[in-house]
Amino acid sequence: MSAFDRDTRMAPAAPDGGTACLGQVSPAWNIGSNPNGGYLLTLAVAAVRQHTPNQADPLSVSVHYLRPGLSDEPCQVDVQVLRSGRTLSTASATLQQQGQARLALLAAMGDLGASTDPVLTVPKPDIPPPEQCPARSAGAQGVGLPILDRLDIRLHPQAAAAATPGRAEVSGWIRFRDGRAPDALACLLFADAFPPAVFSLLGPVGWVPTVELTVHLRQRPAPGWMLGQFWTHDLCDGRVVEDGRLWDSTGALVAQSRQLALVRLPGTA
Amino acid sequence: MSAFDRDTRMAPAAPDGGTACLGQVSPAWNIGSNPNGGYLLTLAVAAVRQHTPNQADPLSVSVHYLRPGLSDEPCQVDVQVLRSGRTLSTASATLQQQGQARLALLAAMGDLGASTDPVLTVPKPDIPPPEQCPARSAGAQGVGLPILDRLDIRLHPQAAAAATPGRAEVSGWIRFRDGRAPDALACLLFADAFPPAVFSLLGPVGWVPTVELTVHLRQRPAPGWMLGQFWTHDLCDGRVVEDGRLWDSTGALVAQSRQLALVRLPGTA
Repeated sequence: MSAFDRDTRMAPAAPDGGTACLGQVSPAWNIGSNPNGGYLLTLAVAAVRQHTPNQADPLSVSVHYLRPGLSDEPCQVDVQVLRSGRTLSTASATLQQQGQARLALLAAMGDLGASTDPVLTVPKPDIPPPEQCPARSAGAQGVGLPILDRLDIRLHPQAAAAATPGRAEVSGWIRFRDGRAPDALACLLFADAFPPAVFSLLGPVGWVPTVELTVHLRQRPAPGWMLGQFWTHDLCDGRVVEDGRLWDSTGALVAQSRQLALVRLPGTA
Repeated sequence: MSAFDRDTRMAPAAPDGGTACLGQVSPAWNIGSNPNGGYLLTLAVAAVRQHTPNQADPLSVSVHYLRPGLSDEPCQVDVQVLRSGRTLSTASATLQQQGQARLALLAAMGDLGASTDPVLTVPKPDIPPPEQCPARSAGAQGVGLPILDRLDIRLHPQAAAAATPGRAEVSGWIRFRDGRAPDALACLLFADAFPPAVFSLLGPVGWVPTVELTVHLRQRPAPGWMLGQFWTHDLCDGRVVEDGRLWDSTGALVAQSRQLALVRLPGTA
């Protein structure tokens, strides 16, 4: 069993099939001493999936982070299916630890098993192959990154320079270190696993807490490296809106993401 | 009192200050016979505001539409404040009519009263002034648009032609007909009041129901016309992800939006 599958297992809290699921937040996906937000999201969506059979793919998921997660601690996810439909179902969920909600989400779940040719799409950008891109390192960021033992992330060395003026950007490659193929759930994690794009503009400004993250998934990814591109042109009053896209190894656009995060600008309290 | 203020009034359901608010869905903001989704959202956020004093601005709001709203019918909004913080508070809410949830949302509320200069922003695009842009008309869309008696919407006549290849686009100007100045709440409505961008590619393909809409607000708009630009480069399997931006009359970027909607492509069942 892959590390990601093992670390996102959720079990019904009661044998009668109630709305609560229990799991464990592994410390292996930490950024510093906090669990990565994308990883916490995958735990919650793994629970949502159990309540939307035949619709296991998050077509659109929006999560608000309320408090930092606690690594190496149990978690409980409570799921409420708000509407069950033929092509999509909508659910809300909260993830709690030690009796406090850590995140709340809304998700539209569907089935991306049979994808057709897109009418409009965004082609994969042309960046150097993974072997020519340096690995994301903890040193450059001033914080320990245990998650890098699970994820192999290679950063385009000229991403910042290649970006349009007025835009901070990071891009590169991502895959699980243990060879597990990416899937819909993994895309939620990959959408929040690159360094914040503002680092390319401001340098490593420390923790950039995510307030809200929305991911739209359009198809399931093919096996192999995924390419991620994340950028922002909206940084104001200590809030940044970062956009992202993920392509799979066939060049197909698989997911789009957007997040609101807080940035402590140099020179401010 | 302006029509928008009158039609978004929400009153506590109980004098003791419970979590429910009551309102009335006016038929004046309809697209065909359904209330506009952006209008329903403003009703819900007007209720959320009452529970987050001093934090009346939706910094980030994500709404999932569960069932069409019912125009000219009462509605009830139930609000749950998930976390109250110094700079932002997070709430969930549902809007119900006739005992069924019509939408569910998550919102991060804050105070955009004191905005500073942006570090990164997107300049206002150069489009012809409102008097050179034709009004959005119901005829071109094959559906009655009562909402156009409330909103003055002028469309850039060459928006589609000016768009990058592989991108469907609509842009233009928007304001309240009765002269009410735009504000944070109005931006949520304006983010869902232009014709779907795919119309510029496919022609008027009928109702394009929104599954999910996220709006990020970065500052309060100045009085006057607002400029909206909406586009998509993601149309696949009958689902479209449309992005949008709103600028105010000073040229400041005020809001960014993204929505997932369903499109019935010509030639499909």
